[in-house]
Amino acid sequence: MDKVFGDMLSGNCYKVKLLMQFLSLPHEWVHVDILAHETQTGDFQRMNPNARIPVVELADGHYLWESNAILNYFADGTQFLPQDNYKRAKVLQWQFFEQYSHEPYIATARYINKYLGLPKDREAEYHGKQAGGHKALAVMDRHLSDNQFFLGTQATIADISLYAYTHVADEGGFDLSDYDNIQRWFKDFETIPGYIAMARENA
Amino acid sequence: MDKVFGDMLSGNCYKVKLLMQFLSLPHEWVHVDILAHETQTGDFQRMNPNARIPVVELADGHYLWESNAILNYFADGTQFLPQDNYKRAKVLQWQFFEQYSHEPYIATARYINKYLGLPKDREAEYHGKQAGGHKALAVMDRHLSDNQFFLGTQATIADISLYAYTHVADEGGFDLSDYDNIQRWFKDFETIPGYIAMARENA
Repeated sequence: MDKVFGDMLSGNCYKVKLLMQFLSLPHEWVHVDILAHETQTGDFQRMNPNARIPVVELADGHYLWESNAILNYFADGTQFLPQDNYKRAKVLQWQFFEQYSHEPYIATARYINKYLGLPKDREAEYHGKQAGGHKALAVMDRHLSDNQFFLGTQATIADISLYAYTHVADEGGFDLSDYDNIQRWFKDFETIPGYIAMARENA
Repeated sequence: MDKVFGDMLSGNCYKVKLLMQFLSLPHEWVHVDILAHETQTGDFQRMNPNARIPVVELADGHYLWESNAILNYFADGTQFLPQDNYKRAKVLQWQFFEQYSHEPYIATARYINKYLGLPKDREAEYHGKQAGGHKALAVMDRHLSDNQFFLGTQATIADISLYAYTHVADEGGFDLSDYDNIQRWFKDFETIPGYIAMARENA
């Protein structure tokens, strides 16, 4: 059986969990505690030399890391990833946007605030994340004014990638109440069969 | 004919140029000057609301942005992108690694140094990029000790994505002389038919 090494409080790990729920894919979840530095061990880095979660160990012993690469792997051949080459590239466009222009602002602000408790020496960095985060949210909101999901009427892994940290952006200090299209998209996304909420704390 | 909007001094744009050379794909190159804020106009943002280069306008009028998504689009069906689902996901793994763990350190340090002339008010940020950049280079160097290219004996778009900013990392203050496997990989990469060097200044 495929194993997923991750932490349910991490949006990048939650992306993988969501897709596996939507597709009813059997898997074993192995908890890795980042705050206890469990990604810094030699054993972990033999799976992912870049020392980050999530990591998937496939049933055949191969490893795969980077949340969005994992989503592409498991979504291939399903309704969450189109077959058409241009549409697949558009899915990737939004996923690279997420990792470069969204996650480093919104997820990092959330991490500093929620996990580190907004320590004095990271306050300037935290406040510095707000403008970039709102820029990404504005790009999303404008796109969703004409599109039910990122690729049109069918939800794809682009939506999973962007939903993960956007829907908990309030934990990073981002007020989403003015983003009407994002609010509407949240509601549509949450009706997908198999949807589960993100854990707010580890059990 | 497909149009590429970009700046030949940008590694992200150079990635697209390299693949098009390797595949002999006809295209029109439209120069966009970032330093003159040409990505900040309404016309540009109708193509890419995230206001970044490169952007491709396909012959049918559709747009695509994010360099690594563009590479996946044009490489589909060629030797630069395997057909196998796991191998494609491994290509994406290295491309997401590039955008999250490599480019924000190495390309940003180069931008601050080469284009902005290392101004006093960004010196701390510049020096802060060095550790993260060396961490990414170490991950690459270790992987390349056992692998000719990132996916094995065949160069793929994962190599194009990582070559672009790595081979000019010296312009961001990164001394590559201790990374023997990266040096060897540069030489192998530069023998691919169609290879062109990156412009060091706009003509």
